[in-house]
Amino acid sequence: MHVLITGGAGFLGRRLAEAWLARDVGALTLVDVNAPSQPLTDRRVRYVTADLAADGVLESVIDRDTTAVFHLAAVVSGQAEADFDLGMRVNVDATRRLLEVCRARGHAPRFVFTSSVAVYGGALPEVVRDDTALAPQTSYGVEKAIGEMLVSDYSRRGFVDGRILRLPTVSVRPGRPNAALSSFASGIIREPLNGEDAICPVGPDVRVWLTSPDTVTAGLVHAHDLPAAALGDERRINLPGLSVTVGEMAASLARVAGDDVASRVQFQIDPRVDRIVRAWPGRLDNSRALGLRFPADSDFDAIVRQHVDRNRSKAFTT
Amino acid sequence: MHVLITGGAGFLGRRLAEAWLARDVGALTLVDVNAPSQPLTDRRVRYVTADLAADGVLESVIDRDTTAVFHLAAVVSGQAEADFDLGMRVNVDATRRLLEVCRARGHAPRFVFTSSVAVYGGALPEVVRDDTALAPQTSYGVEKAIGEMLVSDYSRRGFVDGRILRLPTVSVRPGRPNAALSSFASGIIREPLNGEDAICPVGPDVRVWLTSPDTVTAGLVHAHDLPAAALGDERRINLPGLSVTVGEMAASLARVAGDDVASRVQFQIDPRVDRIVRAWPGRLDNSRALGLRFPADSDFDAIVRQHVDRNRSKAFTT
Repeated sequence: MHVLITGGAGFLGRRLAEAWLARDVGALTLVDVNAPSQPLTDRRVRYVTADLAADGVLESVIDRDTTAVFHLAAVVSGQAEADFDLGMRVNVDATRRLLEVCRARGHAPRFVFTSSVAVYGGALPEVVRDDTALAPQTSYGVEKAIGEMLVSDYSRRGFVDGRILRLPTVSVRPGRPNAALSSFASGIIREPLNGEDAICPVGPDVRVWLTSPDTVTAGLVHAHDLPAAALGDERRINLPGLSVTVGEMAASLARVAGDDVASRVQFQIDPRVDRIVRAWPGRLDNSRALGLRFPADSDFDAIVRQHVDRNRSKAFTT
Repeated sequence: MHVLITGGAGFLGRRLAEAWLARDVGALTLVDVNAPSQPLTDRRVRYVTADLAADGVLESVIDRDTTAVFHLAAVVSGQAEADFDLGMRVNVDATRRLLEVCRARGHAPRFVFTSSVAVYGGALPEVVRDDTALAPQTSYGVEKAIGEMLVSDYSRRGFVDGRILRLPTVSVRPGRPNAALSSFASGIIREPLNGEDAICPVGPDVRVWLTSPDTVTAGLVHAHDLPAAALGDERRINLPGLSVTVGEMAASLARVAGDDVASRVQFQIDPRVDRIVRAWPGRLDNSRALGLRFPADSDFDAIVRQHVDRNRSKAFTT
């Protein structure tokens, strides 16, 4: 069994790769435009540092032994909004090309595509359901919605065996802030725990839909393992998430790490970011994903503790 | 004012061109892969017979005087299902290229895009609403849904001033059957009125969502004329339609043209076509379109009479 992960040098790609190395994987190819900062050293791992959208790259990393493709690579929301052409090139064109290479190989590999709740927008019900219409208000959301349509049709035609996961915002991501508009959802926990102030660009009443690194990694593997028959004709799944306000996130941080740490969260509203994040759904109906036995987080305090435990070797200034 | 119509040599393109010639249009460019069978002879009309998706074609027909683009050209449902690559090339790639040329000109022309109720599918409510999720079950529906996403985002960014119309099935189209899976919805009226038998590949209980040539042509012009502010952030509009069963269509034909004519409709169910057409919505909530003052048909008897009146010069064998 040979597994390909695009975006494999990123945080989630690395976590997913670690999960696969703990299983019976024959070979693991991690392709990413960036070189890995701390490469995995397992002999089953091959890194390919290249632009997915460049000629020949995808053709070189997929063959008929590639039984599973995890397509995580994407230009994130803030960057796709700032550079329309780049977002289309990576989020739409490279996704299509990846599907085309799989189709050309002719063996319909499992194809796990990470979409986002950013496909939703506009006038939303209190709880977003599986049958709520998509009205993305960002180019990133539009590009993910197009990717979903493509993976669905390639699956219907038998070119790939697709599983489309709409990921909640992942919190707490390790590392540094990125260009995702949701970057604050990790920053307001991670930076205070590192003894740094964190700017929150959205109001404390803003409701977000979150998942933890452990849960989303397990969800990606679970999506791969599900038999196609469990999905039927509908390949899109809203992954389980937690619905919390930003104020509640700060309160969790105070409970887990103390008021001094939580006081490092500073609210400086950026009206553009605040508006876009408010347009994303804050609560989704989980029932299909739970029925398919996807893992779920219990509460946000546990997510903060998960981050603390994983980073215990670092000095927290609490 | 300079108007461009893609698919301009088709039935709907010609009807729309006639409507524009009755208005104060300076120039009308009709681009189509097929040459027109009976070209309009008005000196304001220019025909361009070329493949939209070929290099340079769209660049040559749009300039800064192009104030309105009607994008009607498409590979129809049956053909897009039979030839995946052709459908993607025309329905997705040429649409994107057309949007890109408009964007490059920099003047945000009005852009009327004809989508279809084929974007719907899967488990549908009795009455499809504007906020019902899209789950197309054909490549044609997927390609139209992608086109909708693109026109929405290009409009949000101010590259074009888009108006996206989900057309009901147009009945009664003149001429001959085409490769659309909905072709029967015209054929079972048109052919009997011409003294020919018509095969209906779907059951008489199948409910379809119809509009007449007159109404849809007026709707295309109305969509162009609406101020952008009337649409707000939502550029997609389900055009008004009539919800009738195929059996009711045959009954209308009998009332307007007699039982002998209606007896020329023969039901020979094609399970593949029957299944796909049943997956399309048979009834949609019209309220937004009616609130925007789009024209609507009154009943299907009137649609049959509209066809008879327009074709009065031909000999009906009733």
